[in-house]
Amino acid sequence: MSKQERATRTRNALILSAAELFERYGYVRASLDEISSGAGVSRGALHFHFENKAAVADAVEQAAAQALRVTADGVPPGRVSAVQSLMDLSHRMVRLLHGDVVVRAGFRLNCDTGPRTPLDLRQEWQACVHRLVDRAADERALAAGVSPEGLVATVVATTVGLEVLSRANRGWLSSSSLTSFWQLLLPSVASPPTLAALQPGGTDSPALARTDPGRQHPHETPTR
Amino acid sequence: MSKQERATRTRNALILSAAELFERYGYVRASLDEISSGAGVSRGALHFHFENKAAVADAVEQAAAQALRVTADGVPPGRVSAVQSLMDLSHRMVRLLHGDVVVRAGFRLNCDTGPRTPLDLRQEWQACVHRLVDRAADERALAAGVSPEGLVATVVATTVGLEVLSRANRGWLSSSSLTSFWQLLLPSVASPPTLAALQPGGTDSPALARTDPGRQHPHETPTR
Repeated sequence: MSKQERATRTRNALILSAAELFERYGYVRASLDEISSGAGVSRGALHFHFENKAAVADAVEQAAAQALRVTADGVPPGRVSAVQSLMDLSHRMVRLLHGDVVVRAGFRLNCDTGPRTPLDLRQEWQACVHRLVDRAADERALAAGVSPEGLVATVVATTVGLEVLSRANRGWLSSSSLTSFWQLLLPSVASPPTLAALQPGGTDSPALARTDPGRQHPHETPTR
Repeated sequence: MSKQERATRTRNALILSAAELFERYGYVRASLDEISSGAGVSRGALHFHFENKAAVADAVEQAAAQALRVTADGVPPGRVSAVQSLMDLSHRMVRLLHGDVVVRAGFRLNCDTGPRTPLDLRQEWQACVHRLVDRAADERALAAGVSPEGLVATVVATTVGLEVLSRANRGWLSSSSLTSFWQLLLPSVASPPTLAALQPGGTDSPALARTDPGRQHPHETPTR
């Protein structure tokens, strides 16, 4: 292994260790000593990569942003309808949050500890939803009278709610919670000719998603 | 004013000052000195009421719980259908969060700083939603095939999402966001004979709610 590869591996191990500790104890109570020992490295090795705890937290948030972007880019344009793509993306996001402690910790830090960086993960997520709703409107796939803004707000509020509720109970990040939501929403959202073909449970199965390169990043942890 | 009244007034002023500071700077950065001076009292007066910052935070959360319970109890049983009551309650909750910094800060502290007390505001909210959904099922007002559990999860996730998103932008706690949600949901949720009479914007107007004794508690602050 080259020096560069070793450095990258150490940095990723520190990010993963920090995410686990931030999730378990919160930002304030997680200590740099625990973060470095959780990654199996010395405190000095930690300081080679990160100046202080805020810098570690920034790195966790940036890794979460990267995973979000890869997941959003994984939606193939045009292969399926935009409404189906939106449902598929929401399922991918929920699976990502469920399975990846770095993404969960990154979203939580980004929300809780105030604006340390210009990064706003929920706004990025909203922009992803907005793009797909706009595409659905272009495809004339929305039912008459549906307000695109109202639909974006509803999808963003629900998914953010699932993420926050999962802090106390990971069960909120289940495919079934999200499928219930889409089952209730679809009859109002989708134009009648498109409705029959839509699958509120998503079209890419968890099994497929697990082998999707879009979800493989260095912080992947097994689903608890 | 009696000694007892003065003590209650000081305690409420401290809770309001703490909520404003927790909202602005977060729990960790808000100091006891700022909390007491924000309430116009000495640090000694603060310590007469609260042992430490955690005790102040607990009082903020308890005040938020009290406001939530009063709001939920304000739903008159049987006067309107349970589905309408559920929509009305959700609008009341959003108005309460929008207008009351103690409720916002209480929900945020209760979510962010981990389980210091057995109080779980989101679980209490979920129980309120559950009761009304069960009542709607008893009234046979839910459309065929609607899962009560799925409906509860969707309503709770969306309202919690609006609350969390409002931390960055208070506009999320608008009547229009919530009305869009109910407009999209209702056709799937309500049985066809009940649908026409339902009002997704709620039946108790903000003007009425402002004079509702349920919303008058000592921490009321003007809407920003």
